[in-house]
Amino acid sequence: MKSDIQRLMAERGLDAIYVGGGEGYSDVRDYLANGAHITGGVIIIKQGSDPVLIVNGMEIEEAKASGLQAVTYGDMGYMQAVAQITDPTIRAVKMVEMSLKHAGVESGRVGMYGRDAINNTISLVNALNDQLPDYEFVGELHPSLFSEAMLTKDPDEMERLLDVARRTCEVLEATWDYIAGHSATDDGVVIDEDGTPLTIGDIKRYVRRALLDRELQDTGMIFAQGRDAGFPHSRGQADMPLKLGQSIVFDLFPQELGGGYHHDVTRTWSIGYASDAVKIIYDQVMQAFDISIEAYGLGKPTHMMQEAVLDFFEGNGHPTQRSQPGAMSGYVHSLGHGLGLNIHEGPSISHLRREDVFQIGNCVTIEPGLYYPDDGLGVRVEDTFVVTEQGELQSITPFKKDLVLPLRGN
Amino acid sequence: MKSDIQRLMAERGLDAIYVGGGEGYSDVRDYLANGAHITGGVIIIKQGSDPVLIVNGMEIEEAKASGLQAVTYGDMGYMQAVAQITDPTIRAVKMVEMSLKHAGVESGRVGMYGRDAINNTISLVNALNDQLPDYEFVGELHPSLFSEAMLTKDPDEMERLLDVARRTCEVLEATWDYIAGHSATDDGVVIDEDGTPLTIGDIKRYVRRALLDRELQDTGMIFAQGRDAGFPHSRGQADMPLKLGQSIVFDLFPQELGGGYHHDVTRTWSIGYASDAVKIIYDQVMQAFDISIEAYGLGKPTHMMQEAVLDFFEGNGHPTQRSQPGAMSGYVHSLGHGLGLNIHEGPSISHLRREDVFQIGNCVTIEPGLYYPDDGLGVRVEDTFVVTEQGELQSITPFKKDLVLPLRGN
Repeated sequence: MKSDIQRLMAERGLDAIYVGGGEGYSDVRDYLANGAHITGGVIIIKQGSDPVLIVNGMEIEEAKASGLQAVTYGDMGYMQAVAQITDPTIRAVKMVEMSLKHAGVESGRVGMYGRDAINNTISLVNALNDQLPDYEFVGELHPSLFSEAMLTKDPDEMERLLDVARRTCEVLEATWDYIAGHSATDDGVVIDEDGTPLTIGDIKRYVRRALLDRELQDTGMIFAQGRDAGFPHSRGQADMPLKLGQSIVFDLFPQELGGGYHHDVTRTWSIGYASDAVKIIYDQVMQAFDISIEAYGLGKPTHMMQEAVLDFFEGNGHPTQRSQPGAMSGYVHSLGHGLGLNIHEGPSISHLRREDVFQIGNCVTIEPGLYYPDDGLGVRVEDTFVVTEQGELQSITPFKKDLVLPLRGN
Repeated sequence: MKSDIQRLMAERGLDAIYVGGGEGYSDVRDYLANGAHITGGVIIIKQGSDPVLIVNGMEIEEAKASGLQAVTYGDMGYMQAVAQITDPTIRAVKMVEMSLKHAGVESGRVGMYGRDAINNTISLVNALNDQLPDYEFVGELHPSLFSEAMLTKDPDEMERLLDVARRTCEVLEATWDYIAGHSATDDGVVIDEDGTPLTIGDIKRYVRRALLDRELQDTGMIFAQGRDAGFPHSRGQADMPLKLGQSIVFDLFPQELGGGYHHDVTRTWSIGYASDAVKIIYDQVMQAFDISIEAYGLGKPTHMMQEAVLDFFEGNGHPTQRSQPGAMSGYVHSLGHGLGLNIHEGPSISHLRREDVFQIGNCVTIEPGLYYPDDGLGVRVEDTFVVTEQGELQSITPFKKDLVLPLRGN
């Protein structure tokens, strides 16, 4: 949580944090700005003080909506200070120096965060360390201080995550209903009332519109049918018609429009009926899902949850990441990941990650799956969960887990 | 153009370029990958050679669609090489080293590009320069080598820009028509058939859907009415009903869905009728638009075009950026900017930018405007232009420049 930042700074020996990066979405800026729609500016956090935001004049109203102390570059006297300076590097250094001093940071170790062009970061930081000897400008490899803070969500963040979850489930409901309103040919191709095949592209367009109507944006949904469902990263082929009796993996991970909190859900559907093979595989994935929840414990290492699932799948004869690293069929991925402003955050639920433990405020996915592309099938079922203030693991994805999607048209 | 990259490298004394940055959209990666939808991976360009792309196994098909030589990290032996290495910094350095060597870069000056978390860039580049003494890893301040290459577009890029322009103009047409299908109350509030006021939020939802239907995404449109139109950066208030006789500045700058080429267009509309003040101001802005086009010349400095407009507006008694820096009314911004994969690129059309000249392959906006918020009005008219292979300045925004939008309902 944001309340951890001061401690995390102290652990890294930082006297201050400088969040820069210019235009373009930055999860760290969004995080600190409490959801205010700022597109630029810098945020400085001095050890022991509240964050300070410095923006262009045109964004000052939005900046004030962040709840942070906000001033403009003009208020700070930046324009006058650089009026005679033409060298862009010296101007950039001056901006950083004036911002730090405005925030009361006169010297010390400054951690640099935010997101920017790699070439620009290298040049700027070299110049800062050359020209401002009272400071030391440092970085850190991912996962950073902010990755650690974001492991646990505060109540405002939880509210937003719940709301994105609710809206996403509405989209699932609408999509289910949209498909159900179709019929099928004798050879099992799903068609509309004009006899035109319903394609994966049609579904994705429908879903994107449904998301947009709810102020959400698609970040790369997966709608993969048959053999494609057997490849976890296949997004599906737009021109492929939907067919009866095929496993369809539908993985939807939208975020708030313009950038913001995510939801992540996967359902496996088989239209009209499901083959015996898919039913058996689906049943095992659902068992794995229940086993995951049983393996939860507040403060327990996350890898133990994945190990419970690995034990179960291996016991049923499936290759796994653990028993056969590099396997292309069976249970070929980890069990889950954190999410928030980023689709992938900590904690990780993987047998290779020994350090992560479940904590109050976590928001994580649980997503067991089995993949057999050579048998033309794949199954994954995923909910997003939170660890409540009472320490309980709670799904925030109430959408039904039915496998067979019946068509009303037939 | 991409064909300039080798020369631009040589000018900077670079033996190679390394484009990194992990997940997350990167204009440089998109540029080099010729539009293939790669979400990660690195691209290396050795002096004198074609670019080489290295990706995760799951993206290899998409990587091949880029037309570049593509291999996976697995092909390169990365997994085996780091199997015994747990330190994440050493692993990251190893990845860069193996990638460079795979591309035939054994030593020398390597320019680092792409987009990444600032903290990660600092750490990685420090480690690279420490641990790989045969190389020197360098950056450069924006605008970079790629900014310079992107000044001029090749035929494939032009085609995409033209197509985004065409689809954007369809959206303008549909939006005009959508508004025209409404009526108004006696006090001049625009309403639908149920008598519900039509708000700016309704318009924006309509526009976003129309964009999505054409595989475009909104990146922050402006629909500002009355006094708000007098503030160039005001995006407009969502709950404000549309009214008759108010100047409305509608600035739409969408891009291809998922990231890609942009279009940028502004129209000023006044519903039902226009006030005399707005008509006079609009007429002057339209004259400024024509003066801009007359001031064009292949190879001419861009600032001369802006100076022609400044002369005209100042001659008509308006404050400008030049005559009154910091003025909040009159002609308060520059005349235009380049665009492509980024909404703001070179060249710039500003009286403060003396170095930019018009070149074949440029794609630029021309957007004169006048702003009088205290009089409750603002006007801007903008097309996107290209400089053709014949050296001519050609608008790619054919949508009509009518001011008055008549309602069919009244």
